[in-house]
Order: sequence, then C-alpha cells, then structure tokens
Amino acid sequence: MSIYLDFNPPLVLASKSPRRQQLLRELGFNFTIKAKDTDESYPENLSPEDVPSFLAIKKAKALLNEVEDEIIIASDTIVVLEKTILGKPKDYDHAYEMISNLSGKTHQVITGVCLLNKTKQVVFSDTTQVKLKNLSKEEIDYYIKRCKPFDKAGAYGIQEWLGMAAIERIEGSYFNVMGLPTHKLYTELLKFNQ
Amino acid sequence: MSIYLDFNPPLVLASKSPRRQQLLRELGFNFTIKAKDTDESYPENLSPEDVPSFLAIKKAKALLNEVEDEIIIASDTIVVLEKTILGKPKDYDHAYEMISNLSGKTHQVITGVCLLNKTKQVVFSDTTQVKLKNLSKEEIDYYIKRCKPFDKAGAYGIQEWLGMAAIERIEGSYFNVMGLPTHKLYTELLKFNQ
Repeated sequence: MSIYLDFNPPLVLASKSPRRQQLLRELGFNFTIKAKDTDESYPENLSPEDVPSFLAIKKAKALLNEVEDEIIIASDTIVVLEKTILGKPKDYDHAYEMISNLSGKTHQVITGVCLLNKTKQVVFSDTTQVKLKNLSKEEIDYYIKRCKPFDKAGAYGIQEWLGMAAIERIEGSYFNVMGLPTHKLYTELLKFNQ
Repeated sequence: MSIYLDFNPPLVLASKSPRRQQLLRELGFNFTIKAKDTDESYPENLSPEDVPSFLAIKKAKALLNEVEDEIIIASDTIVVLEKTILGKPKDYDHAYEMISNLSGKTHQVITGVCLLNKTKQVVFSDTTQVKLKNLSKEEIDYYIKRCKPFDKAGAYGIQEWLGMAAIERIEGSYFNVMGLPTHKLYTELLKFNQ
C-alpha cells in the first residue's frame, strides 16, 4: 500500500467548511473543492443516526454531473441530544438555549460520509459520545460572545474554548466531532479503488 | 464567577512546548513563559500513573525562587503501554520501534499538572485511553519522515497525521493527549484562589 498526496483518480471535497478542508489536507490528500448549496431537508421518519448519511449522499449526488472520473467526498455532521437533532443556531438566544440543554449531559455527534463517482458509492458514518460539564450562565455567555458558533451544529466547536474548558470526556473520534471521521475516511479512500 | 483573560495573581507556564502554550492561550488565560531544563528522573518504585505528577511538581519547584506571587503551571505527559512508560524517541529506529509496539493496541496517555505558588500547591492528573489501528510498515515510515515526532513521548502527536489516520477511538480528554487536561486545569485555576 502506498501513501501518496496525489490520489488517483483525483478527489473533490464537497464542503465549504475550512475545518473539513484542513482535516483532509492534514490526512495527506490533495483535492479540489466544489460545493453547492443543497437542500438539507430529510424524511421525518428517518432515525437521527441515518440523517447524516442521507444528507451526505444528497450533497455528493448534487455534484455528480460536474465531475469526470473524480471521487466526490461529501459529509454531514449532526448533534443529537436525547434522540433530538440539534441544527445550527439561528441567533444568540438559540445558541444559548442549545448549549444550556447540552450542559451537564452526554450527547452524540454523528458524521455521515459519502464517497461517490460515476461507478461506485460508499457510505459510512461514525458516532462520538461527548460529555459536557455543568456550565454557568456566564460561561455560556462568554463562549457565544467570544466564538460566535452560529455556523456549528449544536452551537459549539470542540476545538474552541467550550471544547477545551467544558468537555469532560469523549468516547470515539475527536476529528469526527470536528466534521470528518478521518480514520474511517482514510481507510475507505484507500479501499475505494480496489 | 468571572472569566477574565488576565488572571490574578498572574500565571507562569513552565513549559517550552508550543502546544501547551497554545492550549493555555485558547483556554482564555494570559500568562508568561519561564521554563528550565529539569532533571526528569524519578524513583524506580514509582508506579507509572504517579510519574507525571511527580515530574510536574519537580518542574514547578525548580522555578519557585524565580517568581513573586505568580502561580506556576507545570506539567508532564507520558505514554504508557502495558504498564511500561514510553519516553521520547532517540532517533528514527527508536521511533519506529515505539510506534510498532503501539500499533493495534490501546495505550494510556497521562498528564500530571502542578499549580504552585509560595503558599499553595495543587496537583492533579488525567488519563486518556487511546486505541491505534494496525499500522503497516509504510504507514509508520511515512509518519516518521513526514512529522519527525522526536520531541514527543510515545513518538506521536495526536494532532498530526498518525492521530488522524490511525487512532480509532479515545476515551477521555483529547487535549490531555496533546499535553494539558484543559477541562481540569480550567476548573482548578478558578478554584486556586478560593
């Protein structure tokens, strides 16, 4: 098995997230970026753990007509608290409410990934358990004002202040919480051509 | 409780590690850096889990005559595989041997922290379980040549390629593996003055 920076066929990352771009780069792969705004709705009867894979497939398929033989990498990350999906917060109050609900509890972060080209589709997902300590009002306020987590599912980034000061433990992959289950992505990419 | 960037009394970080400096800064604290090369030997009969705290106290005490009322933060991180401590690798072959031994197994990363000023000493530690997948010869060689992990206990950095591609799961704190159990440090610093 060889580990080359240039993957053949070339990789296309279907994500505008600078965090995902950074993770894929540090994982050792060259790629181009092509992202479309995709409708992120999903069937109501879908169980939470299937939603990220469903949306990852949707994002990947939206790009299939725009590539030749490249492999599209698309993904979606959700935060699940007591079987309810938390999306991105609309504003300060919404972010405050989400973080208050996460405080003192364990939630799940699930990332679904779809690898897709003209001839093949591979879908996988990964779940990380995350335990937050009890947060004070001042801590939640400080975090939202300092880090403005309005682009983040569940209203926090694990790599930011809240992740450092308030996450007591995780079980699973840290990078999965950041937005890509890098260990699985690495293995599945090397297997894709076999 | 207030969360200010300027801690009173001021903080002194006893570490040259850029990773620890970055973590303490992102945790929201201002500090100065004062690090001395300290003898890192420890009594042979000390059990592995007590070694990081022992060395953290040693590093903190070495600076006590150089501060006024500041709080010194000193720490030490070790990697433990099957009750044996892995230090920093001497060269390529040593790093290769260490990573080969970690491959496919779960090891422990333990960071000990000492907070010390003229009147008070607080010591705590944190353990994270880390599971590595089976690594091929080419993967170990690629990692050592790419990331040159000669300054790292156990010959790897979790934030580097090996951490992304080969760590299947962790249990505990990610930042503890990077070098500081940030969640505990945050809580203990706020309690230190009480």
